Amino acid sequence: MGEFDLIARYFRRPVTRNVLGVGDDCALLQPAAGMQLAVSSDMLVEGRHFLSTVDPARLGHKSLAVNLSDLAACGARPLAFTLALAMPRVEESWLEGFSRGLLALADAHRCELVGGDTTRGPLAICITVFGEIAPGTALLRSGARVGDDLWVSGAVGDARLALEAFRGTLSLPSDAFEQARVRMEQPQPRVELGLALQGIATSAIDISDGLAGDLGHVLRASNVGARIEAAAASTLMAATCELPDLLRLEYVLAGGDDYELAFTAPADRREAVLEAGLRSGTDVTRIGAIEAQPGLRIVDGEGAPVALRVESWDHFA
Amino acid sequence: MGEFDLIARYFRRPVTRNVLGVGDDCALLQPAAGMQLAVSSDMLVEGRHFLSTVDPARLGHKSLAVNLSDLAACGARPLAFTLALAMPRVEESWLEGFSRGLLALADAHRCELVGGDTTRGPLAICITVFGEIAPGTALLRSGARVGDDLWVSGAVGDARLALEAFRGTLSLPSDAFEQARVRMEQPQPRVELGLALQGIATSAIDISDGLAGDLGHVLRASNVGARIEAAAASTLMAATCELPDLLRLEYVLAGGDDYELAFTAPADRREAVLEAGLRSGTDVTRIGAIEAQPGLRIVDGEGAPVALRVESWDHFA
Repeated sequence: MGEFDLIARYFRRPVTRNVLGVGDDCALLQPAAGMQLAVSSDMLVEGRHFLSTVDPARLGHKSLAVNLSDLAACGARPLAFTLALAMPRVEESWLEGFSRGLLALADAHRCELVGGDTTRGPLAICITVFGEIAPGTALLRSGARVGDDLWVSGAVGDARLALEAFRGTLSLPSDAFEQARVRMEQPQPRVELGLALQGIATSAIDISDGLAGDLGHVLRASNVGARIEAAAASTLMAATCELPDLLRLEYVLAGGDDYELAFTAPADRREAVLEAGLRSGTDVTRIGAIEAQPGLRIVDGEGAPVALRVESWDHFA
Repeated sequence: MGEFDLIARYFRRPVTRNVLGVGDDCALLQPAAGMQLAVSSDMLVEGRHFLSTVDPARLGHKSLAVNLSDLAACGARPLAFTLALAMPRVEESWLEGFSRGLLALADAHRCELVGGDTTRGPLAICITVFGEIAPGTALLRSGARVGDDLWVSGAVGDARLALEAFRGTLSLPSDAFEQARVRMEQPQPRVELGLALQGIATSAIDISDGLAGDLGHVLRASNVGARIEAAAASTLMAATCELPDLLRLEYVLAGGDDYELAFTAPADRREAVLEAGLRSGTDVTRIGAIEAQPGLRIVDGEGAPVALRVESWDHFA
C-alpha cells in the first residue's frame, strides 16, 4: 500500500467543523468571529515516549491525549489537529489500531483530523492541535498569586508506577498493574475541566514532566513560590498497592507522564473549583498554597520540610 | 544543556504578529477579523529527506521552506509555525546552525516561531505552519478547467540532479553541481508568487513528489486531464550540464524535491500570470494545457506521445 492509499484508508475523513480537511496542500480553519486559536505540538518517539510493545490503539489515543492536555491547560475548546507520522514500514494491523484509538478520542472531543504527513522513518508521531479560546481568557502559567490555593486534577504518579513495573524495579498485584498501566497508556485529557476553570483558576499547567518540575514553570512565570502538603499530595496516587511513603511521594511529585492539570485559584473560590470539578466529572484535590518566598517546599503535617529530592523529567537528561 | 535551556537559547523569541509564543502550554494566534487560517505539516527524517552530512543551516532553511511552499500553493500569507525536533543528542554547533538557517527564512517571511517540542530520538523535524487567507480565495487542487494553461514556477529537476550526483550515478562539473545542490538543499518557497496568483490561477499545487505525480492530484481533484509539451518542460531544469534528453525530461517530470508551484490559469489570463511572475520575482513557464480527456500526456513538437514512464515519489515505495 502506498502513501496516498494509506492516507485515504486510515486518515481521510470528512470535516464538518472546519472549512477544508485532508487532501489539499493546506487545511483551512475558520475560528469563530473574534476567537483566538490555541496551538500546541508534541512529538512522541518510540523507546522514549512509549514502549514498542504498546497496543497501537492505546498509542493512537495517547498521541492525541497529550496534545489535548495542552489545550486543557489553557482552557481552550478542541477544534482540529494535524498528524505527521513516520513509520519503518506500512503495517495495516498497526495502522488500523492506531487510527481507531486516535480517531475515537478525536470524535469524543469533536476535534477533526485536517491534515498532516506520512513518511518512512523510525516510528515517530507528531501532532499539532488547535483549539478556540476567547481573547483574554486563556489560563496561563504567569497568573498565580500569593495566597492562591494549589490544586491538581485526577490521579498522579500511577503512570510512573506502571513504568517501574514494566522495568521490573517493583512488582504490583495484577489488578493494580492493569489500573496503573491504563493511566500510563490511555491518559484522559482534562479538556472539560480546563473549560470549567475559565474565570476561576488564576494559572494552569499540564503535568507531563512531573508535578514538581512543571509547577516550577508556573512559580517562575508568576514570580512566586509554593508549599505542598506531603500528606495531601500522597493521596493523588490512585493505585492502592503497598509502597514506601517516600517513594509514593516521589512518584507523585516527579513521576512524569501524568497529563493532569496543576492549577491555582483564589482561596475564596474553593466552592467554585469543586463545582467545576463536579461539572466536568473530574476529581480535584487541594494540595498546597502559593507563597511569596520563591521555590517549592514540601512539608509534613507540622509544617516541617520533607527531605525529598525531586527533579523534573528532562527529555535530554 | 537541558531541554529548557536549549529552547531558551536557540528557539525562544519574542512574538510581534501573534498573541503568545514559546513558553506556555499553548501558543495563541489571532487571525485578522474574518480571515481563515491555512495549516500544513511536514516531517523530515534523516536519511529519507536529507543526508546526514547536510549543513545544518541549510537543513533549518529547508525544513521551514517545504512547509512555506504548502502555504504558497494555497496563496496564504505566512503567520506562524511550530517546531517539533527529535535529536539523538544535544550538539550546540548543530543547533546554532540549524536555528540560524531556520529563523533567517522565518524572518524573511515574517513567520514567527510560536511553539513546539524537543525530545531525544532519531533526528526528525516536524514543522506545522500557519498562514492567513481570505475566505474563498485559497488556490485549491480542484479548480483546473478544460482549456486552462498549465504553468510551473522556477526551476524543476535540479534537486534530483544533485541527489544523483551525491549518489554517484552521474558526475557534474563543479559549478553545475553547486548550483543543483543549492536547489536541493535550500529551496525557495514561492510565497510571493502564490499571493500574486490569487484571483488569476484556477488551481495550484506544491511540487514536492515530482511534477507529473503532483499534477496528477490536480487532474483527479478537478476531473480533467492534461497535455505537457516535452520541449517546454525540458527547459525547466536550470542546470546547463550535458544530459540525455529523456533523462532530463524524466528528472523534470519525476525528480522530486522541487518545491515549485504547478498551477493552472485561463488562457486569456496569460498576461496577468506573467505580470504576477514579474511582481514576485519568480520565473513562470507555460508547459501545456488542461484537456477533457483524463490522464497526463507528454507530447513532442508534432503532438506525438513521448515514451516515458514517470512515477510519483512515494514515501513508502
